[in-house]
Amino acid sequence: MPIKMYDLAGAESDRRFSPFCWRTRFALAHKELDVETIPWRYGDKALLAFANWERVPVIVDQGRSVVDSWAIASYLESAYPARPSLFEGPGGLGLARFYNAWADAVLNPALTRFVMLDAYNHLAPADQPYFRRSREERFGMTLEQYCRNSEERLPAFRQMLEPLRQTLAVQPYLGGEAPLYPDYIVAGSLMWARCISPLRLLDAGDPVNAWRERLLDAFGAMARNAPGYW
Amino acid sequence: MPIKMYDLAGAESDRRFSPFCWRTRFALAHKELDVETIPWRYGDKALLAFANWERVPVIVDQGRSVVDSWAIASYLESAYPARPSLFEGPGGLGLARFYNAWADAVLNPALTRFVMLDAYNHLAPADQPYFRRSREERFGMTLEQYCRNSEERLPAFRQMLEPLRQTLAVQPYLGGEAPLYPDYIVAGSLMWARCISPLRLLDAGDPVNAWRERLLDAFGAMARNAPGYW
Repeated sequence: MPIKMYDLAGAESDRRFSPFCWRTRFALAHKELDVETIPWRYGDKALLAFANWERVPVIVDQGRSVVDSWAIASYLESAYPARPSLFEGPGGLGLARFYNAWADAVLNPALTRFVMLDAYNHLAPADQPYFRRSREERFGMTLEQYCRNSEERLPAFRQMLEPLRQTLAVQPYLGGEAPLYPDYIVAGSLMWARCISPLRLLDAGDPVNAWRERLLDAFGAMARNAPGYW
Repeated sequence: MPIKMYDLAGAESDRRFSPFCWRTRFALAHKELDVETIPWRYGDKALLAFANWERVPVIVDQGRSVVDSWAIASYLESAYPARPSLFEGPGGLGLARFYNAWADAVLNPALTRFVMLDAYNHLAPADQPYFRRSREERFGMTLEQYCRNSEERLPAFRQMLEPLRQTLAVQPYLGGEAPLYPDYIVAGSLMWARCISPLRLLDAGDPVNAWRERLLDAFGAMARNAPGYW
């Protein structure tokens, strides 16, 4: 029986753009686990009541529910030890946390200035009022103001990726010779942007983009085949 | 025979403040290897001619010289596999690179605005003209201008540490339950500041400071006993 995964969807039910859900999609693929994704929208909170949770991703594996992308990765690693490891050793598990925190505290906040209006425009109409109200409250301005002149922010955004760039200039993946969960954490953020925004955030010659292309091709081009722009 | 390590020193020969040398000092201690440090100053380039190199750290282990802190850590890990691991598995080794790049591209450049004038003031007089000239060329202003009003930069600096903070709020070390080489990479940068500058960069209640205190105490308080300010 495949693992069920509740996955944020837009107006089109196959447009899946949550960075946190992408972390989990990649992790499930890495573990070679079958998954049945269930499109979920912000208005569907009742659907997750069984897990006592209000956000996605949520997975259900043989009747057991697990919430939160980090907890899901940890669960998959311990529940499926014979499958390819997401961390490759205790050092890998310990060192993965900082990537999660860097994506949450640095990368994703920077990405919001590029994609929040696009996210709004791709949402199911019923989700739009809640999304606009909650985000505009958080940002203290309209979505249009928040995302204005985003192209002018590109140089600073690309500079912010310098630690990724230096790493990926000397090894093909953050995990080394092969991808590990931290690759999926960071790639998940870029999938968020790719799935809803046509703005090319990365130069074609950037080692970060070459790495992103490798992950788009991974797992039978799972990510590349998802509806998206670049 | 102890490993010899060339270690940047100030006017006082026991004031060792290079962030890169601290990475290596911690790594040697983690590997439980005896070390004899040799104070080295910018003017001592001829001393490193044997290694065809011009910067520290350089180590000499049974006649073999290894240069560059990253290469030294890799060397120690492969030359002493029976000693405590600096990476704890292939995942740990792969994932360590990003920490090195983050320290080099984000943390250390931010720290220069706090410590460059202090560094100058602690140097051996013979090193001061070279140091001032090369840094002022790089920064495009005097050291005094570059480090002016550094306290006003503290809030932004502390905000920049948020990924560390979130990580160290949920686990005692970047490596997890025990320190690994990435702990020493980041701690090396903070040792640089500690050894030359009285400015307390961290709040006492910050999880990053609690982690720093643990590393000051590690290895028989090796780092705490080094000449420094806070």
